Amino acid sequence: MSHPLLDLNNLLRPAVGEYGLDPDDLAPGGRLHQRFAEAFGAVEARRAAGDLGFLELPHSRETSRVVAELAESFGQWFSDVIVLGIGGSGLGAIALREALLPAGWNELGDEERSYYPRLHVLDNPDPRTVDALLDRLDLRKALFVVVSKSGSTAETMAQYLVARERVARVVDDDKLRGHFLFITDPEKGALRALAETEEIPTLAVPPNVGGRFSILSPVGLFPAAICGIDIEALLDGAAAMEAACRDGDLTTNAAGALATALHAADTEGGKSIHVLMAYADRLRAFTLWFQQLWAESLGKVKGDTHVGPTPLPAVGATDQHAQVQLFMEGPRDKVVVFLAVDPPDDDVVIPDVHPDVDALSYLAGHALGELLDAERRATTEALRRGGRPSATIEVGAADAHTLGGLVMLFELATVYAGALYGVDSLDQPGVELGKRLTYGLMGRSGYEATAFPEPDERWRF
Amino acid sequence: MSHPLLDLNNLLRPAVGEYGLDPDDLAPGGRLHQRFAEAFGAVEARRAAGDLGFLELPHSRETSRVVAELAESFGQWFSDVIVLGIGGSGLGAIALREALLPAGWNELGDEERSYYPRLHVLDNPDPRTVDALLDRLDLRKALFVVVSKSGSTAETMAQYLVARERVARVVDDDKLRGHFLFITDPEKGALRALAETEEIPTLAVPPNVGGRFSILSPVGLFPAAICGIDIEALLDGAAAMEAACRDGDLTTNAAGALATALHAADTEGGKSIHVLMAYADRLRAFTLWFQQLWAESLGKVKGDTHVGPTPLPAVGATDQHAQVQLFMEGPRDKVVVFLAVDPPDDDVVIPDVHPDVDALSYLAGHALGELLDAERRATTEALRRGGRPSATIEVGAADAHTLGGLVMLFELATVYAGALYGVDSLDQPGVELGKRLTYGLMGRSGYEATAFPEPDERWRF
Repeated sequence: MSHPLLDLNNLLRPAVGEYGLDPDDLAPGGRLHQRFAEAFGAVEARRAAGDLGFLELPHSRETSRVVAELAESFGQWFSDVIVLGIGGSGLGAIALREALLPAGWNELGDEERSYYPRLHVLDNPDPRTVDALLDRLDLRKALFVVVSKSGSTAETMAQYLVARERVARVVDDDKLRGHFLFITDPEKGALRALAETEEIPTLAVPPNVGGRFSILSPVGLFPAAICGIDIEALLDGAAAMEAACRDGDLTTNAAGALATALHAADTEGGKSIHVLMAYADRLRAFTLWFQQLWAESLGKVKGDTHVGPTPLPAVGATDQHAQVQLFMEGPRDKVVVFLAVDPPDDDVVIPDVHPDVDALSYLAGHALGELLDAERRATTEALRRGGRPSATIEVGAADAHTLGGLVMLFELATVYAGALYGVDSLDQPGVELGKRLTYGLMGRSGYEATAFPEPDERWRF
Repeated sequence: MSHPLLDLNNLLRPAVGEYGLDPDDLAPGGRLHQRFAEAFGAVEARRAAGDLGFLELPHSRETSRVVAELAESFGQWFSDVIVLGIGGSGLGAIALREALLPAGWNELGDEERSYYPRLHVLDNPDPRTVDALLDRLDLRKALFVVVSKSGSTAETMAQYLVARERVARVVDDDKLRGHFLFITDPEKGALRALAETEEIPTLAVPPNVGGRFSILSPVGLFPAAICGIDIEALLDGAAAMEAACRDGDLTTNAAGALATALHAADTEGGKSIHVLMAYADRLRAFTLWFQQLWAESLGKVKGDTHVGPTPLPAVGATDQHAQVQLFMEGPRDKVVVFLAVDPPDDDVVIPDVHPDVDALSYLAGHALGELLDAERRATTEALRRGGRPSATIEVGAADAHTLGGLVMLFELATVYAGALYGVDSLDQPGVELGKRLTYGLMGRSGYEATAFPEPDERWRF
């Protein structure tokens, strides 16, 4: 059982000179230490008010027991599970699949998957993607998990209607409902009502858990469990991190230290772009999960001012050949958080095929995971020497326990950062206008079709 | 044969008020019009000096003929093609596969692929990814395309050594060389020398074509051609765009207009984050190709100042539930370029399954592609009303011809933007230190092993 370890050294002045934070500000009695203590108080008040349901998720094992039972009873009947869900309703399932199942899970044979189902996530109403997947699968052995907290997300509802009609083509009427599971609000919304009318099984998203904080609710747990991921270990790791972050002293609260450092780097150091760079393909999807969490929680209008850092996902070593040139020499508007993963026990050794070729022979006898980790260390050090701050989170083998801890670390850091920025990290009012305009264009009753401005042809090329 | 159509209206004051550019500045005689004319002159000088090899690629069909012949002769023997290449050596192949082959290409059966091979790109020396793929494939029917212009890229060389040894386990010695194709410099480098010693077939990257500008060289063309993509149409589209951008008048030069507008939005409007948001899953990979092109070309140190916009990939409608909250309400530091794709002819109609449920019934009779396009229009309009500038590139059916035009539009915009920022868009000096430190850690002779600073344990959590 390992825990994520956060290292902030390369964010500080001893490492990066004038571009870093002053350790004295972070130490007890320091300016930022005090600032976090206040933010912590604000978050604790929201916890006490019952707003922060995600903090309870790892502790209530009643839900995970129900999820596990349902997953087990369903799992044996289906070879493909398709999550229909967008944003927070899809990103968690993708992140867990990629991080915790063997690479290329959906391309493995039944035996290699130990007869657990493949897991697909349709997170966009793109007709080509949807059609190609539904065409390819044997829908008689497919389970659709429809995830929408509100029960009315247009993209997900459209996909559900299409999937429902496709399944109806190949199964008997009385079998149809058995191919669907709804994950939605426990009481409200169209999906809930539909489930009751049609006796479709459901799992609930607690009302005080928003979409982007729902990965440890049934939204993330069910898809994980049905593929055999150890959801108890995931919750254990999250619970341990949550328990370790229960005081307002940032020298012991890792999530608080991370939030305070990133907030100060932005608001005092102009480092408004927060890069999360994972040195492992299987954490690529996790960086997208983080992107939504950080962007949608913190990007807010506050009176007349607009605040919020821009999260930027990256993967090492790949992005050393794409984004690192910009990170090294571009504007000093970024701070990088690295995710460091241990090489696997069965690391791939590089053979000595061409001992006489200088550009190749030095690699022989090393292993790929060793090379990847050397690249991470080298990139971190090159940034440091250029006065470019970074933090590193060591996630060891990145197993379910550690990943649970990492999820909670970032979720907690998000609500702390919300308090530091002075915004409500739980709402998303900025997307309402776009939704209303879409409804109007689609002719939903009660929504006006709006006239869009005519373009000036001079500026069309 | 359609061409990308660039619409800049929503970047201008009539659309977004004070946050937009003044159309008079862009019109003939205007400030930005003049600025582009100068940048155009600088780019033409580099073209004349022979630096901009990528501009010639769509016009020289001798290479595409050789590529097509080689692809055809190879194609019939292999069921899997694996590109080993990182950064510009991998992103082009991924972008073309995703954009121009049917969705889920690698999961389709032989017949559905018309017996063209599957196409994999290993763009990271991650041991889990590499091992899982090599384990899963029948290596007797696998072709490895090793792409490295320098012929010494550590990540790619390591993968090559591993792949070579794995193939040697399952094929006879005299057959081994037939499983490899090198794409590298025509004369220099370790791969070139090896190819000659071992009689491995090769294709050349022209010396004046850098990795991130190589998608229309054999680097992108060979993987595309071997999977049946119409590379002549791709080149035709690129050639047409190149021909349409041969003068210094930005009212007729689309690439110039795009570059000038984005540069001004950054340097005069503080919009340093350039979002490329594609409303189609199959252009998701294209946005990553763009990210490398824009980031690595423009992120540079210039005397004492650090310049370069930060490209940010996004996909609609998915990112409406992840990033759009930040784009709408966060800092005014972004400009969004939308990629608009027509719904397919066989769009997926949304059936009227629940006519009595208000949250679903309005969708019935519409189609998924129609919904996706309505979401794009709604998001564009919501941003406009919030004074958030955007541009839109309409790519119609996004076929090979249009995609070729889109590639050239962005490549040209990149070198124009390089001239506007006053940087060399063709080099990447910022990644050298990281490479040297990696060599040192891996014990390559001639590179010092460096001592890294010891962390202060107080800042490890």
